[in-house]
Amino acid sequence: HILNKNLSYLQNPKISQSLKPSDNFTPRHLGNTPAHIDEMLKVIGVKSVEQLMDETVPKNIRLKPENAFKHNGKEVIGIESETMMLAHLRDIAHSNKIFKSYQGTGYYPTNTPSVIRRNVLENPNWYTPYTPYQAEIAQGRLESLLNFQTMVTELTKLDVSNASLLDEATSAAETMFMAYNVHNGKRRKFFLSNSMFPQNIDVIKTKADGLGIELVIDAPANFDWSKAEEFCGYMVQNPDNLGNFTDITEVANKLKEKKVVVTMIADILALAIMKPPGEMGVDIAIGSVQRFGVPMAYGGPHPGYMACKDEFKRKMPGRLIGVSIDAQGDKAYRMALQTREQHIRRDKATSNICTAQALLANISAFYGQWHGPEGLKQQAERLRSFAEILIDETEHLGYKVVTDKNNHFDTVTINVKESGFNSAEQVVNEFHKFGMNLRQIDDHHVSIAFNEVTSLVDLDEMIEIFADLKGKYPANGFLSQQFYENRKFRGVPQNLKRTSKFMTQPQFNEITSETQMMRYIQRLADKDIGLTNSMIPLGSCTMKLNSAIAMIPITWPGFAGIHPFAPKDQVKGYIEMIKELENDLVAITQYDAISLQPNSGANGEYAGLMAIKKYHESRGDFHRDICLIPTSAHGTNPASAALCNMKIVVVECDAQGNINVEDFKKKAELHKDKLAACMITYPSTHGVFEAGVVELCEIMHKHGGQVYMDGANFNAQMGLTSPGFIGADVGHLNLHKTFSIPHGGGGPGVGPIGVMKHLEPFMPGHPIIPVNGRSSLAVAGAPYGSAGIFPIPYSYIKMMGKQGLLDSSRHAIVSANYMAKQLEGDYKILYTGENGRVAHEFILDMREFKSTSGVTETDIAKRLMDYGFHAPTVSFPVAGSLMIEPTESEDKIEMDRFIDAMKRIREEIREIESGKADKVDNVIKNSPHTLKHLICNDWKHSYPREKAAYPAPWIHTRGKVFPTVARIDNTHGDRNLICTCPPIEEFL
Amino acid sequence: HILNKNLSYLQNPKISQSLKPSDNFTPRHLGNTPAHIDEMLKVIGVKSVEQLMDETVPKNIRLKPENAFKHNGKEVIGIESETMMLAHLRDIAHSNKIFKSYQGTGYYPTNTPSVIRRNVLENPNWYTPYTPYQAEIAQGRLESLLNFQTMVTELTKLDVSNASLLDEATSAAETMFMAYNVHNGKRRKFFLSNSMFPQNIDVIKTKADGLGIELVIDAPANFDWSKAEEFCGYMVQNPDNLGNFTDITEVANKLKEKKVVVTMIADILALAIMKPPGEMGVDIAIGSVQRFGVPMAYGGPHPGYMACKDEFKRKMPGRLIGVSIDAQGDKAYRMALQTREQHIRRDKATSNICTAQALLANISAFYGQWHGPEGLKQQAERLRSFAEILIDETEHLGYKVVTDKNNHFDTVTINVKESGFNSAEQVVNEFHKFGMNLRQIDDHHVSIAFNEVTSLVDLDEMIEIFADLKGKYPANGFLSQQFYENRKFRGVPQNLKRTSKFMTQPQFNEITSETQMMRYIQRLADKDIGLTNSMIPLGSCTMKLNSAIAMIPITWPGFAGIHPFAPKDQVKGYIEMIKELENDLVAITQYDAISLQPNSGANGEYAGLMAIKKYHESRGDFHRDICLIPTSAHGTNPASAALCNMKIVVVECDAQGNINVEDFKKKAELHKDKLAACMITYPSTHGVFEAGVVELCEIMHKHGGQVYMDGANFNAQMGLTSPGFIGADVGHLNLHKTFSIPHGGGGPGVGPIGVMKHLEPFMPGHPIIPVNGRSSLAVAGAPYGSAGIFPIPYSYIKMMGKQGLLDSSRHAIVSANYMAKQLEGDYKILYTGENGRVAHEFILDMREFKSTSGVTETDIAKRLMDYGFHAPTVSFPVAGSLMIEPTESEDKIEMDRFIDAMKRIREEIREIESGKADKVDNVIKNSPHTLKHLICNDWKHSYPREKAAYPAPWIHTRGKVFPTVARIDNTHGDRNLICTCPPIEEFL
Ligand SMILES: Cc1ncc(COP(=O)(O)O)c(C=O)c1O
Ligand SMILES: Cc1ncc(COP(=O)(O)O)c(C=O)c1O
Ligand SMILES: O=C([O-])O
Repeated sequence: HILNKNLSYLQNPKISQSLKPSDNFTPRHLGNTPAHIDEMLKVIGVKSVEQLMDETVPKNIRLKPENAFKHNGKEVIGIESETMMLAHLRDIAHSNKIFKSYQGTGYYPTNTPSVIRRNVLENPNWYTPYTPYQAEIAQGRLESLLNFQTMVTELTKLDVSNASLLDEATSAAETMFMAYNVHNGKRRKFFLSNSMFPQNIDVIKTKADGLGIELVIDAPANFDWSKAEEFCGYMVQNPDNLGNFTDITEVANKLKEKKVVVTMIADILALAIMKPPGEMGVDIAIGSVQRFGVPMAYGGPHPGYMACKDEFKRKMPGRLIGVSIDAQGDKAYRMALQTREQHIRRDKATSNICTAQALLANISAFYGQWHGPEGLKQQAERLRSFAEILIDETEHLGYKVVTDKNNHFDTVTINVKESGFNSAEQVVNEFHKFGMNLRQIDDHHVSIAFNEVTSLVDLDEMIEIFADLKGKYPANGFLSQQFYENRKFRGVPQNLKRTSKFMTQPQFNEITSETQMMRYIQRLADKDIGLTNSMIPLGSCTMKLNSAIAMIPITWPGFAGIHPFAPKDQVKGYIEMIKELENDLVAITQYDAISLQPNSGANGEYAGLMAIKKYHESRGDFHRDICLIPTSAHGTNPASAALCNMKIVVVECDAQGNINVEDFKKKAELHKDKLAACMITYPSTHGVFEAGVVELCEIMHKHGGQVYMDGANFNAQMGLTSPGFIGADVGHLNLHKTFSIPHGGGGPGVGPIGVMKHLEPFMPGHPIIPVNGRSSLAVAGAPYGSAGIFPIPYSYIKMMGKQGLLDSSRHAIVSANYMAKQLEGDYKILYTGENGRVAHEFILDMREFKSTSGVTETDIAKRLMDYGFHAPTVSFPVAGSLMIEPTESEDKIEMDRFIDAMKRIREEIREIESGKADKVDNVIKNSPHTLKHLICNDWKHSYPREKAAYPAPWIHTRGKVFPTVARIDNTHGDRNLICTCPPIEEFL
Repeated sequence: HILNKNLSYLQNPKISQSLKPSDNFTPRHLGNTPAHIDEMLKVIGVKSVEQLMDETVPKNIRLKPENAFKHNGKEVIGIESETMMLAHLRDIAHSNKIFKSYQGTGYYPTNTPSVIRRNVLENPNWYTPYTPYQAEIAQGRLESLLNFQTMVTELTKLDVSNASLLDEATSAAETMFMAYNVHNGKRRKFFLSNSMFPQNIDVIKTKADGLGIELVIDAPANFDWSKAEEFCGYMVQNPDNLGNFTDITEVANKLKEKKVVVTMIADILALAIMKPPGEMGVDIAIGSVQRFGVPMAYGGPHPGYMACKDEFKRKMPGRLIGVSIDAQGDKAYRMALQTREQHIRRDKATSNICTAQALLANISAFYGQWHGPEGLKQQAERLRSFAEILIDETEHLGYKVVTDKNNHFDTVTINVKESGFNSAEQVVNEFHKFGMNLRQIDDHHVSIAFNEVTSLVDLDEMIEIFADLKGKYPANGFLSQQFYENRKFRGVPQNLKRTSKFMTQPQFNEITSETQMMRYIQRLADKDIGLTNSMIPLGSCTMKLNSAIAMIPITWPGFAGIHPFAPKDQVKGYIEMIKELENDLVAITQYDAISLQPNSGANGEYAGLMAIKKYHESRGDFHRDICLIPTSAHGTNPASAALCNMKIVVVECDAQGNINVEDFKKKAELHKDKLAACMITYPSTHGVFEAGVVELCEIMHKHGGQVYMDGANFNAQMGLTSPGFIGADVGHLNLHKTFSIPHGGGGPGVGPIGVMKHLEPFMPGHPIIPVNGRSSLAVAGAPYGSAGIFPIPYSYIKMMGKQGLLDSSRHAIVSANYMAKQLEGDYKILYTGENGRVAHEFILDMREFKSTSGVTETDIAKRLMDYGFHAPTVSFPVAGSLMIEPTESEDKIEMDRFIDAMKRIREEIREIESGKADKVDNVIKNSPHTLKHLICNDWKHSYPREKAAYPAPWIHTRGKVFPTVARIDNTHGDRNLICTCPPIEEFL
């Protein structure tokens, strides 16, 4: 309440200026001062920001100021001062209670090694970059992701791993679809063990529902072998829901004969000492790598993993990092098989995943290097030994232990009903008194999962409580050190023991000291461009400031140390923040309700379309399955629609880049009885506020369809308009774009959806922790998805307040128009609105240069590296183009440098066009130039070194990140696909 | 107690290996694995580490293993696991209570902007480097320190500032000595206002006592003008102890006529709106810059500042950063006037300061850039307005306000006795109930100092409590927003108002956004070599790992947010940790008692020698003032002795580099009646365990002298021997060397002293918070000096435990001997012990190359940069040498690269010697090579570029920090001394 009082004081405009704090955030988030804005407006040719907004945003969707940031009685209330924001965040964190967590179920306390926490998770060099599309200035995180892939293949003993998926549950669901696709959709049944974690089952159910796959959920023993060939896939979990670890080699062999794809969710740590899936004949293994140093964070973000046999690799979803060579013949990393990416496959995509969990995958890879195979073995051995002790001691005390005495890993399940107690709840409550959370599986069972931070004394205490509950606690205490001295263990039974070596590569064995780890992390970071180095003007990605203050709370124990299934009264802080964040997003978007569960934009699309689908079904409209999608849409849109079994009908765009309203109308009418939805991005991916948007919504609604609005471009809307106001029924936001969550080099993301009232019942729920009463249709493993990073958008919204949010969008639009104006003399701007204005981003057409000079959009992207810049988005949404989005956080000085670079490149193109420069041997075609190349004794080029390295004078003072590899040969890499660490002698 | 139980479990060797945690620290602190050690032993030519220790450490000082790490019943108990260490630190932090602090007295709550906290204070690129001795790879922090100097000169309106001193109190004491030196010691009186903060007075008293300066402490009004010419200096504080701010222009003018040096302690923030010392005719201003974003941290580390008129600049203590040019004619920064440094001036030094507060100075400089002049004004205006409201309202309530209604800044003093209360204590206790700490000045007075984090609601609450205490709290609450609406303020009276502009340089005005600040910090960091990039083998500096885990707690509010004068019951965590740290240091050093107050090694020397002096005086031995110091001693030793008015008698070293025992004996006998002390460094600064050390102690004691042992080389002693065992009476440790506190680019440091029983009463005390009953002889402003960073050595000691500490020293010695062995074929090792072994560091003689090739030690230091390395210590303790100290944290692979670099440089020298390379135009003389130079179109050198840039093949994979400036011209810089920011157009 003190905070509220403080806020109302600060927000009172009559409070004397002398009493106002000097640490407000908005002017520091915004890159430009009022003076900068004035200069830019002059260039644009308008008198005021308001005039530009009038010329840019169509009147019929423009919110009146008094109606912005308000909806259904909800309204954004800001916290301007940094000091107060931190105090408020601390209050929230302290309202969460940190219990010792034994709830397991896929989430385990872990110790993030401090050197990794500080230098990766808390370091903007790691958390600010985008997905490594520009591989030449992303070799650092590409190397680390390759380490991740190698670690996963080694532990699972499978051939290929991708560079992370969203979490364990979504990985499992992806796997089901993969199996389905292996059989080209011809086998519609998928078998699921009923002893998997409930959230995994539920997310798979949602997906099966969307795709029309028939799930058979039963005990593996009940699998009907006579019908085996009707099944595309078969999935079990190891250890299973009760803690049992099973060797399925025989079953797998039999399934293989029937061509059933065998899949297994496997605990990554268990594989250090237990038989890995690859040695059981499993085709695909999935799971979470959270317990490798990634905080529980109330459910996420966490890296999901997927590894498979070589034969399935081209069907694998997600990003795959591969090894190739560069133009100088040196080894170089890059994303492999990019042709599989969503924007290419569209409705034929086998997955809609785009943003994944790169930052978290990197953390877990470093964790793997930190501990090495021996450390992981030691840890696994220890937890297994803890479990063995607990099994023996509780049995001894008269408990009915359900978990197999031998075939277990870290988890022990007890049937407490059969042990003489009324209910599982009773036992769980007893442990709460001692600050411990056990898992209540059902009315009869509790389970205990040990973890890295469990100590022997914790184990003591636990056994003592179990004894006490049985009235067997002796007056003089129970346990003592002697109890553990020279204790012998049965250990993993021979048949389940891992005998094969793993992680034998130097990466996992040569870093033995913290100094080496610190330098390795630094050396990798030095190779990459992040927001710490330059603007990253990736259109559609909104690379705005990720403020340090917003990152500070996420590693506090009060946020990081909480299990997603912790009892309600332990997570009051989280619940309060989630409610407030939902309310703020309602007020901002003017949707009626928000679900924060989706953990990426694409996952939001999928959740939103599922809501539409279930809505239609609830009205008996099972036949509504047509989805209209414009040609300009992001690849995830058709992919998401496909995942809901919708049929995509493509709508044309007109010459101005707008959706062709006539074509839209025509197709809507044509399919009117089967119309499910349309998907539109607003402003459009062409960077334009289309005037026809309201009409599109009306057409849709007239025919009983629902409007899905892709929120990737929401950074142009805040306070100016809103999806709810425009007429959308549902849509996602990318909190990792508009709301300042850092992109982490390819994730994490948060992609909440907003819906209008009628769709609310169909938003994601959760089987363990119901969300606003919804207990199914989960799209992620945790009830609130990646809740651990909610403090970031929450801080952003609060510290900006209404005016700041509005100014974000206004400034973003001013900056884009300024840059477009400055560049239009040299480059062709592809699309503009009715008044010649662009929205918050714009497209430069590079196609003409191909014929005049041989220069392509890729050449220009690479040449920008020589100027110290990260390229804009290449060839999306238009092939042969660059799309530039400056965001409100970039300042005019930086934009002017970028503009200057682009103009100089244009001049360089002219030199080729005019014959002054060679067509092949020129600064552009040979870009980017590495230091090794630039400093070579024998310079063979027709242009001088300085022109290659320092093509603009300001580079000397500004500094730049020199690319560490030259142009990468993607074709070579894809042809010789290598996705694990090559032997690296030069490693340290 | 849980922790203790856990620890005893872990330390029980019988506990089964399967139950042991996998996150112990020692093997990660140590750079080398057992396999590495074995390889190195082979090269050295010994069978075991033990054999090497036997050959290195003289028998008569070798501790038996069972006697190590124990003393007087105290014993080191370790905490091996990282998880438990963090849990333990959290417990300690939570035992400190965070009250709202209004105690002021030079320490104020402040908000460290998160972008600065994360990217500077918590970033190893900033905290791991050493003092910028090698300027070419330190341009980043040199630029920032220049910003600091500029900020200070601008705010004080004086001409020159240094790059920080240890704190406000020591700065004040330094100033007194400066005034004394201005008069060449001919005026022995110094006038001190009695209305200064008590700790400032006490530290000055200690110094005056040591130097024999006569202090006159009185009200300024009582200054005896008739005797003015007996005074060397005159000091007042603004605002003073009661909160009054006084214009002393007239007094200053009169004093100037009498040639009295006018000095002022001035609150740095006040100067944003109030008349600065430079405009009052003050000669020297000093103070603390803590409130510019540096946490209170229970007293430190904090940057002290000193600024003076141009005429005094060459008398100024501390480091001065200046602008010069490099070999290419480009602007370059470096430490100016290095000839003033201690190691040159020795006993003629005017100060002993060496380590200062570089990291904290940088934080405050960034803070100044973050807020800019307008932000600082706003903040100052706000706090002054708060004070004005409090003055008016308390007067209105019937309180007797002592602070002048007009001439105040942020502090309000009230005479509560005259306001109707029994005592100041009563009032202070009332406020404690509300979580607020007021300052109790004496029995009658309390004062309230406002600060950056005070909110209006805090002010409300305070006024309400004051009202309540007077029985005037109305039933319906007291204050409301209306109270502050449109409130008018008297403001600063015209005569005290600052009218001059300040901080008008682009540095303080062009960074307006967080993005810009983040990039600026990154850009500077990129220019420097820290431990994140390579080994920094600076002999005598012990650049070991500064572990991330140990850095984590220091920014927790439980450590960072505590005022040094907070009541005892609020600092239980700190007190517990301090006691435990003292006990551990007693056990490790085998001294009887420890004082943690000295905040640098040099300050420890001074405190230790003062203890000796007071001890002699306590026995009536006022005449004992001779101090024997060997020629090899570090410059701070004679300088510290001089500060205690001791007369230095230099003792010769023999050809083996050992103290000449005969000479020592002779001089001790010669001066036996006047002998006060001797100072020895052990192992010697020559890197040798001198066998004669016990004899030296005996000689000293025989003649009634005391043995001071400089602990800079303590990293070679841990568990092998100890000062107490050897026979020292007192000595300091550099916790910023041996105990892992990062050096911060030139500070902070912690230089505790250990003493034997008889000296304990003479260790530093504190006038406000007595230390173990000692309330005078303070050597720093805070009772426990830089307590905020104690968690670092504490964590180091705990996580290493006995075995780990012992191994630190053992491994450090193995590594030094390994490197010496590898290099001895190419370079001359200057000194070794009796068995040909070096200690933990060794000296390479470079003098011969001067005549054979013209190559100097400096040339080699610079050429090492081309190999990506930071040079060893240059010309200390022997001119023309390099001193190498690898520490236990560097691994063999890194050492081998360094060895390879040195061998290749030797080869490069041979090329010059043989005439193969030019004497002038060669890779060494032209080093270091910048990128700009290497990539120039027009390469004019007789050697190829690759040889300049990549002289070893491993540089390509390891990467390196390219120096951003070429060889710097120091003479040019000193001749044209510029110590503030030059106009920089190319700034952003
Ligand atoms: C227009 C658009 N829609 C959807 C997405 C997918 O979002 P995510 O990467 O969070 O899955 C993107 C990502 O760039 C996008 O630009
Ligand atoms: C031998 C020796 N003594 C004393 C000191 C001074 O320590 P500090 O820099 O902490 O004041 C040093 C610093 O390098 C040193 O090497
Ligand atoms: O406050 C922290 O726990 O970092």
